[in-house]
Amino acid sequence: MSFEPTDIQDLARGAALLGAGGGGDPYLGSLLLEAAVAEHGAPRLINVESLADDDLLIPVAMMGAPTVLLEKFPNGGEGKRVLARLEDRIGRRATAIMAAEIGGGNALIPLMLGAQLGLPVVDGDGMGRAFPELHMVTFNIFDVSISPMAMTDEHGNVVSIDGVGGEHVERLARHVIMGMGGSGMIALYPMNGVQARQATVRGTISMAMEIGAALRNAREAGLDPFEALSDYLRSTPYYQHCHALCTGKIVDLQRETRAGFAVGRAIIETHGRSSSTTKIEFQNEHLAAWTDGRLRASVPDLICVLDQETAEPITTEALKYGQRVHVMAIGAPPILRETRSLAVLGPQAFGYEHDFQEIEQLNQ
Amino acid sequence: MSFEPTDIQDLARGAALLGAGGGGDPYLGSLLLEAAVAEHGAPRLINVESLADDDLLIPVAMMGAPTVLLEKFPNGGEGKRVLARLEDRIGRRATAIMAAEIGGGNALIPLMLGAQLGLPVVDGDGMGRAFPELHMVTFNIFDVSISPMAMTDEHGNVVSIDGVGGEHVERLARHVIMGMGGSGMIALYPMNGVQARQATVRGTISMAMEIGAALRNAREAGLDPFEALSDYLRSTPYYQHCHALCTGKIVDLQRETRAGFAVGRAIIETHGRSSSTTKIEFQNEHLAAWTDGRLRASVPDLICVLDQETAEPITTEALKYGQRVHVMAIGAPPILRETRSLAVLGPQAFGYEHDFQEIEQLNQ
Repeated sequence: MSFEPTDIQDLARGAALLGAGGGGDPYLGSLLLEAAVAEHGAPRLINVESLADDDLLIPVAMMGAPTVLLEKFPNGGEGKRVLARLEDRIGRRATAIMAAEIGGGNALIPLMLGAQLGLPVVDGDGMGRAFPELHMVTFNIFDVSISPMAMTDEHGNVVSIDGVGGEHVERLARHVIMGMGGSGMIALYPMNGVQARQATVRGTISMAMEIGAALRNAREAGLDPFEALSDYLRSTPYYQHCHALCTGKIVDLQRETRAGFAVGRAIIETHGRSSSTTKIEFQNEHLAAWTDGRLRASVPDLICVLDQETAEPITTEALKYGQRVHVMAIGAPPILRETRSLAVLGPQAFGYEHDFQEIEQLNQ
Repeated sequence: MSFEPTDIQDLARGAALLGAGGGGDPYLGSLLLEAAVAEHGAPRLINVESLADDDLLIPVAMMGAPTVLLEKFPNGGEGKRVLARLEDRIGRRATAIMAAEIGGGNALIPLMLGAQLGLPVVDGDGMGRAFPELHMVTFNIFDVSISPMAMTDEHGNVVSIDGVGGEHVERLARHVIMGMGGSGMIALYPMNGVQARQATVRGTISMAMEIGAALRNAREAGLDPFEALSDYLRSTPYYQHCHALCTGKIVDLQRETRAGFAVGRAIIETHGRSSSTTKIEFQNEHLAAWTDGRLRASVPDLICVLDQETAEPITTEALKYGQRVHVMAIGAPPILRETRSLAVLGPQAFGYEHDFQEIEQLNQ
């Protein structure tokens, strides 16, 4: 797999789409990755199947409200520092690293670090999208322990946490992130090859890059980018269900940074043959969408807001009043729709009362 | 030195006085210490002079708003756990432990731990009183690094911090404490014997116990406890300056838990030959006192509120509307009045504009 600037831009665009509005701005991550590749050469991408049983695989990510991530550009040393701390804590060096979430900038951070440190990067992640809380990953769902975990900020402060459970660690880490000014780099869920093969959503780095390439190729050829995107998604093993929810204008937008999250909602009005109103609620990522009061999609299925002209994915922090957008729903990878997964990242995990319904049922 | 229940009660009472309103409720600490002594025997108290140059001395304390400490009784395992984590981080076992602050319950916690673990406890602390923030100690003033530090809660979660400076660590630890529900046990400022001899306020465990004994003996003999207290303090090397500020009734009390601190003020009215109003402001500890608008005392000198009848010290969280109290000011140990110390724990470190003035000047 190649990591030319065009590939990195493709990956960033695909990661922004799979971020479902969250995961941090992939543009920052793409700059970091381009710089790392220019200095150290391309990272080596490997399949999770190629890991030895006793390999040590460590997922890494940025944590924090994306609104703050926009203002706090990582200086590049954080990843190395946070990985070193977790390795010290475990008493072993990592043999590979991985993305915790493919969505947003967190798709690119591990590749940057892999290039810098010469460590292979597993082609996969822990959700096939982005989610706002640390325990909302397949690693947790398949019983990989979140701790020991390590965190660092741009000043060089390092914190490590050994928690008695995922929710304890999430709460403590969220407080630490606030103490770090709203964002930081983390390394967590250290696992061996056996655990990794059970708990990884596979191939998502490649798929994100191909999503970006499909959009770019359609634009360059003057074709409809939404059609190209749908065509590509239908060819994948994970994302074959996708539905247009609406095309319209953002007429109301509420967004605030609360307890370390970007929380809010957007209202999109459609005019035309039949006018309608679509509401989207988000907590870093889009959580649920309703049209004229009827549920259209909700977590763990992906709700993606794209620019109406260019099909460029728009993160929740980049939503603007008056923006003309196209909203798509994409079915989550099947592993996220299993009962054990829905308990951790389904609608009720976010405080909604409704049961999860697949987008292909809701939008027949 | 003996640790019979009477001695422990004396120590708790003396520590409450030196807490200057803060440091946590010593009653909880005294119960923990009594239980530890009953099970393991008395802790061994040593002088800082007896440490070898390469000994590893680790101060331990409870951290958090005292209002919360009242509700979250430590279960006894925290001290062992937090010390073990810091030892793991350093790669050496502690050869002795010490109080970070002699004020309040934090005078008793290290003795409990010393009894449990069979570790000697240095007779001394890092301030000769209590202060609300982690960098407000002689250890910091004499260039001992605050980190690595470790923290734990009653659930078993453990966090360690390596900060790039005292204020970074204070901010991160304060956020962690909030994530721990408002209080936790900490181990920090690991130091060798050479550093300890430079940075320790000596003999404060013994002095606190003698303060408590002086009050108890006076009560038992039917003598004036305030006079007995003043007589004893004047015989010590550190606390020979003490002044009565007022005797009266609390007519106004504001107190809230904010950002992990108990913050507020009390107004005391005196009636008699000449009526007057004394205002005391506090942040966990009493910070400054004014009578009819005139400054009477401020940090680092100690402001102590005692029950008007029994001379029992009253912590800021136990202040009540209508309480009849006697307010005393006690000069801080000379090391705290040095210029380098005042920069860290003088009035301006707490946001006041006035320069530090010694109580013996203010109350001539």
